[in-house]
Amino acid sequence: MSELSVNHLLGIKYLNKKDISLIFETADHFKEVINRSIKKVPTLRDITIANIFFENSTRTKLSFELAEKRLSADVVNFSAGQSSVKKGETLIDTVNNILSMKVDMVVMRHPNPGAGIFLSQHVKASIVNAGDGAHEHPTQALLDSFSIREKLGDVGGKNVVIVGDILHSRVALSNIFALKLQGANVKVCGPKTLIPKHIESLGVEVETNLRKALEWCDVANMLRVQNERMDISYFPSTREYTQQFGVNKEMLNSLDKQIVIMHPGPINRGVEITSDVADSDQSIILHQVENGVAVRMAVLYLLASKIK
Amino acid sequence: MSELSVNHLLGIKYLNKKDISLIFETADHFKEVINRSIKKVPTLRDITIANIFFENSTRTKLSFELAEKRLSADVVNFSAGQSSVKKGETLIDTVNNILSMKVDMVVMRHPNPGAGIFLSQHVKASIVNAGDGAHEHPTQALLDSFSIREKLGDVGGKNVVIVGDILHSRVALSNIFALKLQGANVKVCGPKTLIPKHIESLGVEVETNLRKALEWCDVANMLRVQNERMDISYFPSTREYTQQFGVNKEMLNSLDKQIVIMHPGPINRGVEITSDVADSDQSIILHQVENGVAVRMAVLYLLASKIK
Amino acid sequence: MSELSVNHLLGIKYLNKKDISLIFETADHFKEVINRSIKKVPTLRDITIANIFFENSTRTKLSFELAEKRLSADVVNFSAGQSSVKKGETLIDTVNNILSMKVDMVVMRHPNPGAGIFLSQHVKASIVNAGDGAHEHPTQALLDSFSIREKLGDVGGKNVVIVGDILHSRVALSNIFALKLQGANVKVCGPKTLIPKHIESLGVEVETNLRKALEWCDVANMLRVQNERMDISYFPSTREYTQQFGVNKEMLNSLDKQIVIMHPGPINRGVEITSDVADSDQSIILHQVENGVAVRMAVLYLLASKIK
Repeated sequence: MSELSVNHLLGIKYLNKKDISLIFETADHFKEVINRSIKKVPTLRDITIANIFFENSTRTKLSFELAEKRLSADVVNFSAGQSSVKKGETLIDTVNNILSMKVDMVVMRHPNPGAGIFLSQHVKASIVNAGDGAHEHPTQALLDSFSIREKLGDVGGKNVVIVGDILHSRVALSNIFALKLQGANVKVCGPKTLIPKHIESLGVEVETNLRKALEWCDVANMLRVQNERMDISYFPSTREYTQQFGVNKEMLNSLDKQIVIMHPGPINRGVEITSDVADSDQSIILHQVENGVAVRMAVLYLLASKIK
Repeated sequence: MSELSVNHLLGIKYLNKKDISLIFETADHFKEVINRSIKKVPTLRDITIANIFFENSTRTKLSFELAEKRLSADVVNFSAGQSSVKKGETLIDTVNNILSMKVDMVVMRHPNPGAGIFLSQHVKASIVNAGDGAHEHPTQALLDSFSIREKLGDVGGKNVVIVGDILHSRVALSNIFALKLQGANVKVCGPKTLIPKHIESLGVEVETNLRKALEWCDVANMLRVQNERMDISYFPSTREYTQQFGVNKEMLNSLDKQIVIMHPGPINRGVEITSDVADSDQSIILHQVENGVAVRMAVLYLLASKIK
Repeated sequence: MSELSVNHLLGIKYLNKKDISLIFETADHFKEVINRSIKKVPTLRDITIANIFFENSTRTKLSFELAEKRLSADVVNFSAGQSSVKKGETLIDTVNNILSMKVDMVVMRHPNPGAGIFLSQHVKASIVNAGDGAHEHPTQALLDSFSIREKLGDVGGKNVVIVGDILHSRVALSNIFALKLQGANVKVCGPKTLIPKHIESLGVEVETNLRKALEWCDVANMLRVQNERMDISYFPSTREYTQQFGVNKEMLNSLDKQIVIMHPGPINRGVEITSDVADSDQSIILHQVENGVAVRMAVLYLLASKIK
């Protein structure tokens, strides 16, 4: 039987093309199971998973929790806000303590880039990175590609533009790795100050004109304007951002094709996309959320099968 | 088999008399099951319920959680404090995201009156209103009536006075609807500034003299003084409130009958009722709490049977 | 069959020697079960346990939760931060409300010494004290002794020194009771200002010289410097504390024997012990954490068997 080439999911950077195919085929299976209204499979009933979130999260945490429960895993939740971290304990000590209680897998979100990688070198458990600072958010990129594949049949050969604050976005970086690995053509589009230098080295083209980017692409992945990360110096104002990089229905209708609109959520309606774009037939935003549970079930299942 | 006339529990206002009877008969059954120390029934084992609380709550949230677990439903909890709501996401987007993960029912508390009604018009899931601002708190009114019925045999024909801040109380409004529907006689009693104008249009009488209200009633439902909602302009002071509208044991003993004392909790001992009243034989306060779990099991069960 | 002499675990002070043996033998059994990778036993599947934490906690709360889940108990969590306590409800009312929902056991952490004892006198449920102010933390002391017994074969006759802020430490007090009950010799070591007067009345010797204490002991239990409790007046500075009462590897190596190093966590690395001490073969710190789950399973199981 096939298995992943890795023992942790730390980033898309560490996966190969076969890993992604295996995850998607496994997710296909779980999605079918969910759609047949089978809410729970006994697959991981002997596994205990700790969700360790050092940053707030709604959809990612909920999606992992549902994936874990549907695999019948035992779940313990740990939020940094109510924890020993405030008392000066190190990350490794915190996690080692949790692991001493016979925890098999850790799903971790952490504000520091590389936190999961560091942890995987020091503790005995399978680590799933649920977002590490501005670095990677691999399960988001997997569910994004899975959703493109579902909508368009394949990711390979497709033209995908990622629009927004590329500089601070772990979603963008993980998506670039995943899309390139599967043979998609990738452009990034956004204010010059929010595009990392040398991003072309990842095989990506920069397009600062949104109109041109939309005309070129099959899929536009519209990143959220992260007010909490964006500094006044990066871009004049949200309003000017919307004028240059926001997508509205008129713009979509004026294209000579039906491009697919994606968004990792939460949406700022009226900023990066208008409400009628978010709710249009071209939007697969809620399918992304739905697919997230199946993709995370696949990741957890495949990693668990390596530790058993 | 009988079923509810509604697909959501948004308020008592939307129920008919038969709905209430059906809920109570179902709750009777669940209460009996609990009392036989059967902690769990497999009834909702294929249902996933999201508890979405945009306001703090102890007893209501815990009561719903226990009801859900005893029905074997899968439960996910979502608190607004740790969420995307702070990032500017709309209510509908937040809930639609949760529902995309195959959630069947939503139990929601929200500070805005009508939030549940609004939501029920825009999402595909059964909505249970666990309190929406100063509007309704239907499961509280149901458990209150269920507890009166348990104590006095019937709600119809009984004289019930609701004492306190009627103006800001969703408990009062839902109770008025429920009691009137079942044929009880209802008076409200409290400071004039805390009684809504035109409340008589709901078939309710206003009595500003507590002594007279107690002499008239079979049941006194003593609302909590909500310091957090009450403005200095509404009433001089908590002390003066207690002098005019607080119930103590001497007052109870001086009546020529044993009236039933209710309180939705949390109690401010020494403010709306004294400790010896709260702990007296006439108080059914803890029975209300106990009945809350059975009544909520009934509501969830009956609504779930409409979506299956 | 043997059973505990108590109906609650309020403190080690209320246990006898036979109780401790019974808890350890039961914990041996549960540890073996866990080690055979059996994650769950159906033992408490009819029991509902409420974890009520009025103070933050990571490891204790997680450890209890895992113990409860592995016993198949139904678990409800209640944190004071999101609760009616802020609305002025009394402790007894809060807990009675929770118990009215048919909860069988309460695991409670509270900032006030004696909170659990007070509660046990007023509510109908088995109470487990998970730490009450600077008073007792009985399950910590039990897992500490269990870990010494595992490492050294027996607790009786062993020389144990507890190093640190004895005055504010519930861990120290519970350990003193537990160790003395089992026939260990106990010394406390720390700054004079952080050692309670008359502590000798508990059968404990005071040793203010760390070197001498280490030469004497078989086991050193290194308490955490609780910056949040320690006042500037008690001791000059953390740095001076470390110089006089911190343990480093050179110090350990210079002893003519291998003493056992314990720590209740969370560790301030470089303050009470250095990193190489925490991670050395002499440290059983992570075994303490691991044993915590088995010991708490034993306590919950034995108390539950008295209420059924």
